Amino acid sequence: MSIKLYGYWRSSASYRVRLALNLKKISYQYIPVHLVKDGGEQHQQAYLGLNPAELVPTLVDEDEDIILNQSLAIIEYLDEKYSSPVRLLPEHKLQRARVRALALDIAADIQPLANLRVLQHLESAYQVDTQGKTDWSRHWIEKGFAAIERRLQNTAGKFCFGFDLTMADVCLIPQVYNAQRFGVDMSQFPLIQRIQENCNKLPEFASALPENQPDAQ
Amino acid sequence: MSIKLYGYWRSSASYRVRLALNLKKISYQYIPVHLVKDGGEQHQQAYLGLNPAELVPTLVDEDEDIILNQSLAIIEYLDEKYSSPVRLLPEHKLQRARVRALALDIAADIQPLANLRVLQHLESAYQVDTQGKTDWSRHWIEKGFAAIERRLQNTAGKFCFGFDLTMADVCLIPQVYNAQRFGVDMSQFPLIQRIQENCNKLPEFASALPENQPDAQ
Repeated sequence: MSIKLYGYWRSSASYRVRLALNLKKISYQYIPVHLVKDGGEQHQQAYLGLNPAELVPTLVDEDEDIILNQSLAIIEYLDEKYSSPVRLLPEHKLQRARVRALALDIAADIQPLANLRVLQHLESAYQVDTQGKTDWSRHWIEKGFAAIERRLQNTAGKFCFGFDLTMADVCLIPQVYNAQRFGVDMSQFPLIQRIQENCNKLPEFASALPENQPDAQ
Repeated sequence: MSIKLYGYWRSSASYRVRLALNLKKISYQYIPVHLVKDGGEQHQQAYLGLNPAELVPTLVDEDEDIILNQSLAIIEYLDEKYSSPVRLLPEHKLQRARVRALALDIAADIQPLANLRVLQHLESAYQVDTQGKTDWSRHWIEKGFAAIERRLQNTAGKFCFGFDLTMADVCLIPQVYNAQRFGVDMSQFPLIQRIQENCNKLPEFASALPENQPDAQ
């Protein structure tokens, strides 16, 4: 297999890439990078050569001799290389722009704030306790979801944008999974909840779930 | 003018979009949204209709009847609509993927962590003082720049990727500006420093500088 994905079962950025690979029916080798064990395998020399940012995921495409980080860059790359069976970025430039914006609402303005390394830093440098860290994560997730719920009023059908799956759904579902981990009351966000239910009925979403990965604990 | 940019002089995401507009020689109307005055104009009803996330920038393209948030989505949109005089995303898919990844290293993994709203929340909810907030910003900027400096060893020429300006430079320069505000010692990052010097010699970069905006204080 020419495609290798370095990821972690509970990393939502890894989860996004798994979804994109599944929806595109691309077979790949999954290589777990344990973010907690032994201080975190992402900090070890073996991984640093692949990704000096010490974050997952990293995708290696041996056919093209490319090592790529950043889940959204990976998803756009896969979408450009494999145009079938589905496109995750719509053809029309206005729709494509809207999909990218919603994906970034999650991938730039929610997820990085409630990331493992941020919670670890809050604890080690600012003595924030477990409750404080949970509050922090929920604060940013709820703030972000409130804005996304409003945007979806103009765009949602079965999925974020009408009746076609896009990169926005691929970002939204892992973020909802995270929200539930942190105890966010999802009934505040009925459109997001409906989209999650519709997505999770699909086999490509079920097999990408964190608990269905080989490194799940 | 059909293009309106809602932004703030010191917002680095707004600064990215100004750079893209300047490099593409697109004339636009700049509408300042003061992020601090009166508790922040981004939270007021007039702006919420444009951007429920209460963040800048927002771009309105009246010709296309589109209201768009997220600086990277805006830049890709402008790049697709106006293919000359320069392309900010390279033609080849591998190069395009690398440019997107580096842009996201900044726009997802550095900037959102040291954002105004995050610093305000650290203070109001976690009693972090001014020094603690500065330490926080520097921590994430230095960590992010260390990884970027390593990546640039493989790609940099005059700019982040060889001798053509890309979306990566458009993200890097505002982040360096921010780093300097927070007192980061840029001599740790000689490649980033060299790219910044090369960019800031260009008139498109000079006119996008925060202090050269009408709302600068």
